[in-house]
Amino acid sequence: MESLPVISVSRGISIAPIFQFRNTPLVYERRLIENPLVEWERYRQAVQESLNRLEQIYHQAVAEVGTDEAGIFHAHISILQDPDLNDSVKDRIYGEKINAESALYEVSEEYCRMLEEINDEYIRARTTDLRDVRDGVLRILLHVDGHHIKLTSPAIVVARELTPSECLLLDRRLVRGFCTIEGGTTSHTAILSRSLGIPAVVGIPERLLSVPDGMLAILDGYEGKIILKPDQETIQHYQGMQSRRQQIFETALRETHRPALTLDGHVVEVFANIANDNPQDLKEAVQNGAEGVGLLRTEFIYLDCETLPDEEVQFYKYKSVLEAFGNRPVILRTLDIGGDKQLPYLDLPYELNPFLGVRGLRLCLRNLALFKAQIRAALRAASYGNLYLMFPMVTKGAEIQAAKAVIAECRAELEAEGCSIPPRIPIGIMIEIPAAALMARHLAREVDFFSIGTNDLTQYTLAVDRTNSALTDLASGFDPAVLNLIQAVINGAHTQGKKTGICGELGGDPLAIPLLVGMGMDELSMNAGEIPAAKQIIRQISLKDARLVSQQALELETPEEVIALVKSAFPFIENYI
Amino acid sequence: MESLPVISVSRGISIAPIFQFRNTPLVYERRLIENPLVEWERYRQAVQESLNRLEQIYHQAVAEVGTDEAGIFHAHISILQDPDLNDSVKDRIYGEKINAESALYEVSEEYCRMLEEINDEYIRARTTDLRDVRDGVLRILLHVDGHHIKLTSPAIVVARELTPSECLLLDRRLVRGFCTIEGGTTSHTAILSRSLGIPAVVGIPERLLSVPDGMLAILDGYEGKIILKPDQETIQHYQGMQSRRQQIFETALRETHRPALTLDGHVVEVFANIANDNPQDLKEAVQNGAEGVGLLRTEFIYLDCETLPDEEVQFYKYKSVLEAFGNRPVILRTLDIGGDKQLPYLDLPYELNPFLGVRGLRLCLRNLALFKAQIRAALRAASYGNLYLMFPMVTKGAEIQAAKAVIAECRAELEAEGCSIPPRIPIGIMIEIPAAALMARHLAREVDFFSIGTNDLTQYTLAVDRTNSALTDLASGFDPAVLNLIQAVINGAHTQGKKTGICGELGGDPLAIPLLVGMGMDELSMNAGEIPAAKQIIRQISLKDARLVSQQALELETPEEVIALVKSAFPFIENYI
Repeated sequence: MESLPVISVSRGISIAPIFQFRNTPLVYERRLIENPLVEWERYRQAVQESLNRLEQIYHQAVAEVGTDEAGIFHAHISILQDPDLNDSVKDRIYGEKINAESALYEVSEEYCRMLEEINDEYIRARTTDLRDVRDGVLRILLHVDGHHIKLTSPAIVVARELTPSECLLLDRRLVRGFCTIEGGTTSHTAILSRSLGIPAVVGIPERLLSVPDGMLAILDGYEGKIILKPDQETIQHYQGMQSRRQQIFETALRETHRPALTLDGHVVEVFANIANDNPQDLKEAVQNGAEGVGLLRTEFIYLDCETLPDEEVQFYKYKSVLEAFGNRPVILRTLDIGGDKQLPYLDLPYELNPFLGVRGLRLCLRNLALFKAQIRAALRAASYGNLYLMFPMVTKGAEIQAAKAVIAECRAELEAEGCSIPPRIPIGIMIEIPAAALMARHLAREVDFFSIGTNDLTQYTLAVDRTNSALTDLASGFDPAVLNLIQAVINGAHTQGKKTGICGELGGDPLAIPLLVGMGMDELSMNAGEIPAAKQIIRQISLKDARLVSQQALELETPEEVIALVKSAFPFIENYI
Repeated sequence: MESLPVISVSRGISIAPIFQFRNTPLVYERRLIENPLVEWERYRQAVQESLNRLEQIYHQAVAEVGTDEAGIFHAHISILQDPDLNDSVKDRIYGEKINAESALYEVSEEYCRMLEEINDEYIRARTTDLRDVRDGVLRILLHVDGHHIKLTSPAIVVARELTPSECLLLDRRLVRGFCTIEGGTTSHTAILSRSLGIPAVVGIPERLLSVPDGMLAILDGYEGKIILKPDQETIQHYQGMQSRRQQIFETALRETHRPALTLDGHVVEVFANIANDNPQDLKEAVQNGAEGVGLLRTEFIYLDCETLPDEEVQFYKYKSVLEAFGNRPVILRTLDIGGDKQLPYLDLPYELNPFLGVRGLRLCLRNLALFKAQIRAALRAASYGNLYLMFPMVTKGAEIQAAKAVIAECRAELEAEGCSIPPRIPIGIMIEIPAAALMARHLAREVDFFSIGTNDLTQYTLAVDRTNSALTDLASGFDPAVLNLIQAVINGAHTQGKKTGICGELGGDPLAIPLLVGMGMDELSMNAGEIPAAKQIIRQISLKDARLVSQQALELETPEEVIALVKSAFPFIENYI
């Protein structure tokens, strides 16, 4: 038995044999070909195959880890569709009569050299994407792509490095863990692992790469350890831990269709975040007892289209979600994109700081045709369920008034067209900008409900781009500054008799639940997988205790102090982390 | 007489003749040359001349409008120094034996085409800079550059469009106003005009471009009007306005060396913001009765160097400012740069959102050699005056502790080297991140003073990049959300017996002064030119009234409501705007 210290990036425990993930190296010769037509066709088919796979991975990633993280695959698709690149490869195949592999390799390297000559970090970083995409096509041309690496039994996967697509392509029913040398807490692969609920560690020692396949190991993603050839006692210890957690989870799942009442009888609504157009999300939300949809993401339809998705397409998508939830509320968030996510059919200007730019409602109010198509589709779908409408990235009341005017206009148009729309559709806003949180008592007069987007609220409050890996230690939703803003939002809403939900990551975090309940949050919305545990945690606390603890938390200075407070006040929560 | 409506982007009134600013068009022939050596030398000299001018303009811009706005010229200098570009021009001159103008034009157009092929707004925008720089060199080669356009008497300058360098190159003692077709409130030229105190309007009708030079006009930058051939009565009306304002300003200037006491005897300290290494700033601050330096910007030394500026260079710069202010406090802000401002000798990574990235103290704590050189230089200079040290972009207490540890380390090193340092140097932080404002009561324990950076605080609180022209309507320091944070900072400081200043644009805004005084701000720091008016305004209000008005303002919802409240409570302030 040997224990190796590693860095945990996704919690959990696994006991399984090691599987060494080794991608076949890309080897080919530059050779002259006779028929460029055939070679070009080979290339075209490989590109098409690669596109199909990328699209499949993209959809899978959107479904499993959300549009933000899936964005990388969207960028890869754009590169493969670039007519300049493909024309250059064609010219090379026909002009020099060489094989597709060489033509693609040479053209892509020329592009990369051109980009590397430009003295700009941002542009240089694009070469990594270009080479990744190129290698994907080469693997298909050479029949050595990662698709051939298939797990046949449960295993802990060991590799020098894993690309996000390599992670996603492995059968996740069989993957028991990821161990790599490269990567950090915020690497794409780490985020994917956490989203998929698979334990993962990084910074493994080099020699773990030469351990034979099949050697039994324990991956401890709590303590950050890999134990090779564990002895019987160690195995039993970890099996005990696993089964205790398993039991706790199964109990939670059994109870998940009951409402979540605190020990002293206070009800907290537990909703699911789902991505539109993702049947898996929808199914899991219903199965796990979601009492409504706290956040229906609609970006997907837009990012997925070559042209502006029309009202009809949207109508059917919304209708199906509404029908699935019957009379339970479905909060549809209108299009939330901006300069950091490009739509080919919208000519969005370059922004130096897209997170501080024209995003969400700001963008919709500047692109009324786009906005109206979505509102009309939503209003038409409204009679098939219990629709709520919510606007993202709201800064001030005037924007809400403008958005409500658009709704009124669409309603009038539709009613004139003979369409029947429920008389009252609740209107709410995301609170994700510090100013909106600070002014919540005013904004509450304009809306029926709030939903706090803690991811963005945290990033603006702390002035930390949450995708900037250099600053991860600075930004936490447990920061008392963020908690104080959340409290201000809840108080502002309650003053006007309105309800507040939360749909950021914090909403499903076991350690945050007592704080949110204590601050008076009316509804928690989270990934469907988190619902059973969240409900079970609520059932084990009293509103009275939660209030006390949250009031103490608001007076603390650091997120670390807040987390320590919650852990000491509610030690049972450790079992749910 | 004829009155034309226009859009005011810089307030003020001028009565002067029209001057049509017309740049000679760039015309040349592609011709073969005999001696490429001579031609290349011609090119080299033109580039050198262009570089000299750009550097002169850059320094002038830093001095007159600050490092942020001057950044564009810094980028232009980098382009001109690009060896790839210059090598390509050389190859073209020698290879094709053509004149420098043609070689430069063709090479630059090829670069631009290459950049334009990349499907990326950001990269495409770089072509504008490249062509601007190219035209600058062409103008020198063709002897038709803007330098030959010289005003000989006071005039209102009319042009289709003015580049920032064209604005800066005109003799500002003679420019009485700028009138252009292109441009908006946030264009570089508009910002320059405001900084220079020159009235400016945009959106002028096309036909104003054909009005003859010398025609008398009135530029009304309050109401947004250009009056051509004004009659005697109109001239007298405007002269009356001008002389009233002149009188008010002269009175303020006469009184400017007296302290600023409210009617009920409350003292407010009035300090100046100055850029290190700018003798003009320093002189104006002393002349205008600055009671200290509330913000000594030190970025200049860094942006101006090819390599890390050494301790010795910095020491002398700091010493000269400290000596000029004697025993009056000089608050030195440590290096405040980040991913949006590149230093050639620091390899800063590309950041998607540099304003939410590694800036200010975050950057210094990650580049300790850089930070220590500055701290050592400052500590050594401390005995020549009354030094205060201030850190920008602070999020939490741990960062302050880390920075204080660096100071302690530098002090110990210097004392071991036999250097004598004053025993107590007050340490403060900028409050410009919402979290820091919200947690001010905690952070106040770690420091001796706060200074609120309202520009950044506004941008983070409202999630609006202040350089994004699409969103200017959303961001205002008068937003009650921002005012509530300012109040929290002041209260947090006072609870711990500490003082708070302000060094953002809001600090020198006449309409903001009663609010800031009323909220309990201890010190206002502003551009030296704003000091006389600010002091005079303070003398005409009572702390009691200011408190009442500021308390009302904190309960309002929009910046427009706040501004209307101040105007109605203190109508005399209109005279100072």
